[in-house]
Amino acid sequence: MADPEFQPDPAVVKRSAPTVEDVARAAGVSTATVSRCLNMPAKVGEATRTRVLKVVAELGYSPNFGARALAAKRTRTIGAIVPTMENAIFARGLQAFQEELGLHGYTLLVASSSYSPEREADQIRTLVARGADALLLIGFDRAPAITEWLEARAVPHVIAWAYDADAKALSVGFDNREAMRALASEVFARGHRRVAVLTAPIAQNDRARERLAGVRAAAAEAGLDPDTLRVVETPYSFDNGAAQMDLLMGDTPRPTAVICGNDILAAGAIAAARAKGLRVPGDVSVTGFDDIEIARVLDPLLTTVHVPHRDMGRACARDLIDILENGTHPASTELRTEVMLRGSLGPPAD
Amino acid sequence: MADPEFQPDPAVVKRSAPTVEDVARAAGVSTATVSRCLNMPAKVGEATRTRVLKVVAELGYSPNFGARALAAKRTRTIGAIVPTMENAIFARGLQAFQEELGLHGYTLLVASSSYSPEREADQIRTLVARGADALLLIGFDRAPAITEWLEARAVPHVIAWAYDADAKALSVGFDNREAMRALASEVFARGHRRVAVLTAPIAQNDRARERLAGVRAAAAEAGLDPDTLRVVETPYSFDNGAAQMDLLMGDTPRPTAVICGNDILAAGAIAAARAKGLRVPGDVSVTGFDDIEIARVLDPLLTTVHVPHRDMGRACARDLIDILENGTHPASTELRTEVMLRGSLGPPAD
Repeated sequence: MADPEFQPDPAVVKRSAPTVEDVARAAGVSTATVSRCLNMPAKVGEATRTRVLKVVAELGYSPNFGARALAAKRTRTIGAIVPTMENAIFARGLQAFQEELGLHGYTLLVASSSYSPEREADQIRTLVARGADALLLIGFDRAPAITEWLEARAVPHVIAWAYDADAKALSVGFDNREAMRALASEVFARGHRRVAVLTAPIAQNDRARERLAGVRAAAAEAGLDPDTLRVVETPYSFDNGAAQMDLLMGDTPRPTAVICGNDILAAGAIAAARAKGLRVPGDVSVTGFDDIEIARVLDPLLTTVHVPHRDMGRACARDLIDILENGTHPASTELRTEVMLRGSLGPPAD
Repeated sequence: MADPEFQPDPAVVKRSAPTVEDVARAAGVSTATVSRCLNMPAKVGEATRTRVLKVVAELGYSPNFGARALAAKRTRTIGAIVPTMENAIFARGLQAFQEELGLHGYTLLVASSSYSPEREADQIRTLVARGADALLLIGFDRAPAITEWLEARAVPHVIAWAYDADAKALSVGFDNREAMRALASEVFARGHRRVAVLTAPIAQNDRARERLAGVRAAAAEAGLDPDTLRVVETPYSFDNGAAQMDLLMGDTPRPTAVICGNDILAAGAIAAARAKGLRVPGDVSVTGFDDIEIARVLDPLLTTVHVPHRDMGRACARDLIDILENGTHPASTELRTEVMLRGSLGPPAD
């Protein structure tokens, strides 16, 4: 006669994989509670959540996204594609984006395009194929084809780190050109005339292009021919900033101010100037963009543009959730940036 | 005629590929026990082994079914789950991981667990349900159930940022304890006796726990009672490092050295010391861990442990690709770290 231990529970054995009903039965809760535990953990008491997730793990239950898609047409997965995961320029905004999504039971999946529009297009298709309900994308520079592809599939998406009231796409960002113009005019106001600009490659990077345009606008306002600006393009990195600064400081006459496209380039530039025995700002002023942590620990403290990364990330999450859950059409949001005047900017020596 | 207790349910036999869950359920054991019976039979009691292997035979289960099923639905998407996307501590390694994957035509999708094992377990299930072929996970601290869940599904995964030759799981990392022990012994060697440790919360963070153990080991070697160390736990962030340093500097007698669990905490600590008018290292020495960019721009330059983040990311990618494409079983890799002695560490004032 059969050892009861060997008697498989028919209700379970009849299936190739445990179902939400199996989990609900084993945990002694409703199937609705099970899916809340998986989708909106914040909305379930901890004791219940712990018990249910324990059963989920024990049974090896994997939510059947097909069935849930039928039920809810949602995977509660949202994708974000950023140009790079290295250095902190997108990290803080993404973290705030993911925290806000988590509060509403959404999982964030992030891909990094290495500043390649082709790779970004592939990753957009991959994330949608993997079931992303909505996407966060950085900036407006991409082939019309992939934007049309998104619109054809009615995939909600928000453009971050840039703002364009006239654009068809929803954007939550700031005016890169005006933000940099405001900073650069502080540089020219101190009398700098030999000014260099360290920028990321501007092709296919509307943020970098707009920031450079902002410097040129400020130069023109200061009565300077924008074409006399020494513009150097180099990918955002500490080492690139240092290497290009090293070259710039070899120029005669030497620039008296170097306006950098972000704080990482500026940090490298200041390190290179120090290594050359040059005083900042005595011999050369250096400015950045973003106001990430590194700006607050540089010596001297970095004059830069403060970008409200956390507000931006949270606003992007709220807009996408609003679209997905309430079918709204949020208006684009322009966030204010602020010029942070700190020790790295002073008057020219001569 | 078959022993009734082994009458497999028709619904199960009909299926072309019985799963390890089918075997586990029919045999009344966990999926992990099934894998052990097949992979490490010596580690399983004979009665259980006989029962399981009999069910395996009855159902015609072959572990290769799982592998074949997996190979059939390869997506060339690989998932990574990191505790946080904020601050740069995982950014560089992830970027290198993704660049290496890109070279081989794989797309990386990253999720961030906010240091919550429950959220990590959800994200593991989500990424696998979204079709991830393999996973990169940080550290060894997670519920056995989710590891068994991964093993039951034969999902290749690599543990990074930690190394354990004895662990069953493949790991590519470094010895956090020994790395921090080597740094801390430099601190004690300079005569510091009132030493504080700023660490991330050590619960469910094996890297932080091991680093703290390394400081305690170095203290003992220096003839100091490890329990006299002033240990403060605070989540990794610049602001937390600054706030806790501010409190520590109010102690009497004041610690003469503060060993920080990573460079971000150390950067905040140095900024707070400077704000209090304290000289580093004259009044207090500060050390970090990671050697990310911020360590090279702090004033003074930060004494820290250099972690080969890029090598680690690349090695993880190569191992997972090797497993997926060649079915190999790579051995775990221990990477060497290096103590970087820089200006932030000096002898105590008294």
